[in-house]
Amino acid sequence: MTTVGILGGGQLARMMALSGAPLGLRFLVMDTVADACAGQFAPLIVGDWRDEAALGEFASKVDVATFDFENVPAESAQWLADRVPVFPQPRALAIAQDRLAEKTLFRELDIPVPEFAAIATREDLDNAIAKLGTPCILKTRRLGYDGKGQFRIKTPADAAAAWEALGAQAVTVGLILEGFVAFERELSVVAVRGRDGEFRTWPLTENWHVDGVLSASLAPAKVDAALAQTAFAHAKKLAEALDYVGVFALELFCRDGVLLANELAPRVHNSGHWTIEGSETSQFQNHLRAVLGLPLGDTRMVGMACMLNWIGAMPDANAVLAEAGGHWHDYGKEPRSGRKVGHATLRADSAADLAATLERVGVALGREAQVAPVIASLRG
Amino acid sequence: MTTVGILGGGQLARMMALSGAPLGLRFLVMDTVADACAGQFAPLIVGDWRDEAALGEFASKVDVATFDFENVPAESAQWLADRVPVFPQPRALAIAQDRLAEKTLFRELDIPVPEFAAIATREDLDNAIAKLGTPCILKTRRLGYDGKGQFRIKTPADAAAAWEALGAQAVTVGLILEGFVAFERELSVVAVRGRDGEFRTWPLTENWHVDGVLSASLAPAKVDAALAQTAFAHAKKLAEALDYVGVFALELFCRDGVLLANELAPRVHNSGHWTIEGSETSQFQNHLRAVLGLPLGDTRMVGMACMLNWIGAMPDANAVLAEAGGHWHDYGKEPRSGRKVGHATLRADSAADLAATLERVGVALGREAQVAPVIASLRG
Ligand SMILES: Nc1ncnc2c1ncn2[C@@H]1O[C@H](COP(=O)(O)OP(=O)(O)O)[C@@H](O)[C@H]1O
Ligand SMILES: Nc1ncnc2c1ncn2[C@@H]1O[C@H](COP(=O)(O)OP(=O)(O)O)[C@@H](O)[C@H]1O
Ligand SMILES: [Mg+2]
Ligand SMILES: [Mg+2]
Repeated sequence: MTTVGILGGGQLARMMALSGAPLGLRFLVMDTVADACAGQFAPLIVGDWRDEAALGEFASKVDVATFDFENVPAESAQWLADRVPVFPQPRALAIAQDRLAEKTLFRELDIPVPEFAAIATREDLDNAIAKLGTPCILKTRRLGYDGKGQFRIKTPADAAAAWEALGAQAVTVGLILEGFVAFERELSVVAVRGRDGEFRTWPLTENWHVDGVLSASLAPAKVDAALAQTAFAHAKKLAEALDYVGVFALELFCRDGVLLANELAPRVHNSGHWTIEGSETSQFQNHLRAVLGLPLGDTRMVGMACMLNWIGAMPDANAVLAEAGGHWHDYGKEPRSGRKVGHATLRADSAADLAATLERVGVALGREAQVAPVIASLRG
Repeated sequence: MTTVGILGGGQLARMMALSGAPLGLRFLVMDTVADACAGQFAPLIVGDWRDEAALGEFASKVDVATFDFENVPAESAQWLADRVPVFPQPRALAIAQDRLAEKTLFRELDIPVPEFAAIATREDLDNAIAKLGTPCILKTRRLGYDGKGQFRIKTPADAAAAWEALGAQAVTVGLILEGFVAFERELSVVAVRGRDGEFRTWPLTENWHVDGVLSASLAPAKVDAALAQTAFAHAKKLAEALDYVGVFALELFCRDGVLLANELAPRVHNSGHWTIEGSETSQFQNHLRAVLGLPLGDTRMVGMACMLNWIGAMPDANAVLAEAGGHWHDYGKEPRSGRKVGHATLRADSAADLAATLERVGVALGREAQVAPVIASLRG
């Protein structure tokens, strides 16, 4: 009997446990809060990431460890890795945790990136704004997620407000300034790499964000095959450079037909949730297969799939459940503003059917704005 | 937050909890043993079915109750139904628990059945053997499963041995004698009926048993559409007569192209396990949707699927995981002779591909005999 430890007990850990159960695995989740939603389906240890007693108990009970939460301190990940196998390896995690290290690596690998500059002082910021131009975005290097820890600078005059908002974090988590990319689309590669180096990707996914938070995903993205191949090649190069093991997502901007790498998420990813019903093997099960050294599962999809994120509170399930290809995912969380509480996946055999399904769901839930860009892409 | 109680904590409860989690449900399982495998993913109350303290605790913690185990005493089901909604209703359960009541109902509904006779005494047995002829099968009316509680009578001289084996149970669970059906095929309808009476079936499934235990299932069964329609009509008539709510399976023998009803399983069924990956909505999730009064999910399948049961001990997973359409289900049970410990589902887009997949898996696992009849059906 193999027990997989998961650091972080949110919806990613929850879905990992649910799709790993058929492999005969047991799970142990560690989180900083007692009501972490993965705890509804797996035993949970509550403790701070730096609490060595809790981490030690966790380590003693698991055969291998992985992450639902990429911002576990690199030292905690390393402490654990000295005791049990940890995948992805702490080194890969450390790079993906730091937007500066990550973008520097992209550049080294000849993967195009938006312009960026490291920011340590207010003076750095002014110089970088002068160099990169506006609009641009000031971001924390570490610990940002769902658009948190970001400040959009529209004109040089916004520098003061940006520094006001994030300047104090220059010495704690670090800052980076990025050129604002007026992209046509956002895309992501969700990929998996095995312990033996085998590499697979799911079809390319198109993503729409609202206020920096993922709102909808569509797979396969309606792009030409050459663009998808370039995206996959970037992901593969990156995975090999990091000797990565497990599932990751590479987020890309597409501007004037050119792909620019935005960030690497070193874990199963929200833009891969559609793989649960839309693909032969879900990202969650393939992550576990990779981490355990099992053969990777087929990543092909049947038909098309759209994922809609539910933020803050769950809408009424019936409109989705009534659709032939409608699948519901309620993470069992308390509603809270800005919180990812669930998602729906809509599957269909054709773009026309999927667009019609999305239209009905959008109207039934009063979420026409959320489905509109996906419908436009499907009909475009 | 809705908590679904499940009486019985085996693999059916386990797979029900895993597929119900995305609906935002919580589960509470009750079983007579502490190591019931559903307890790995849901809280478990251990107690005897007639233990009112345990049943009372269970009732107080759930919003609705259902079954993984059809042989919960009818009185316990009724005791529970007086406290919380229970689906399927105890009356339907009571009929399905009793082979005599079940076959009598089939007959009343003009659903053809093998010949049968109620047996209370040794004299009844001799008379019934004379009337039905040999071969025939003596079965317990209640509590039989996986071919247990059955004695095959090849010649009238076997009557003494049959009575020796099962006679004592005539006064406890009752006995029934059935004519032996020299069938060409065994088929099952896996169907679901909602609280509002909506009725759906998955494609017809062909099943192969070894020593009375399911060994392999293939969906869709290679039969002509008219036969499938007749099978579905029988299932619908039955569900309506019982005002059934939830998933059930109707097991059928096909002899000389005529369908004879063998038994009704008032629960999710082993011959429907392929629906997890082979169908838009699994039998497990649709059972929960029905029980909760939610819209039923689409039951269509994509391609073809074969389920192979693992009895006694799990074989090596790799041969299955290495197949593009290979899905593994380890129930997390201790190995034990005759025990259902897991299954695999192989999916493919065509009969030829599925046959080739089964051939590889059969050879890799040394289970050529298990896959042979499925391959013959696919290539026949
Ligand atoms: N440089 C940029 N140019 C344009 N849009 C951006 C840029 N950086 C971030 N965004 C927008 O904000 C979203 C979230 O930013 P991201 O850097 O991916 O942080 P997070 O870690 O929160 O996902 C992106 O998906 C994109 O929509
Ligand atoms: N009357 C019969 N004629 C031929 N085979 C039978 C008969 N009854 C049972 N069998 C065989 O035994 C298997 C198990 O018997 P069944 O009555 O379905 O009991 P269980 O409740 O154990 O599934 C059947 O699927 C079939 O293969
Ligand atoms: Mg991002
Ligand atoms: Mg049977």
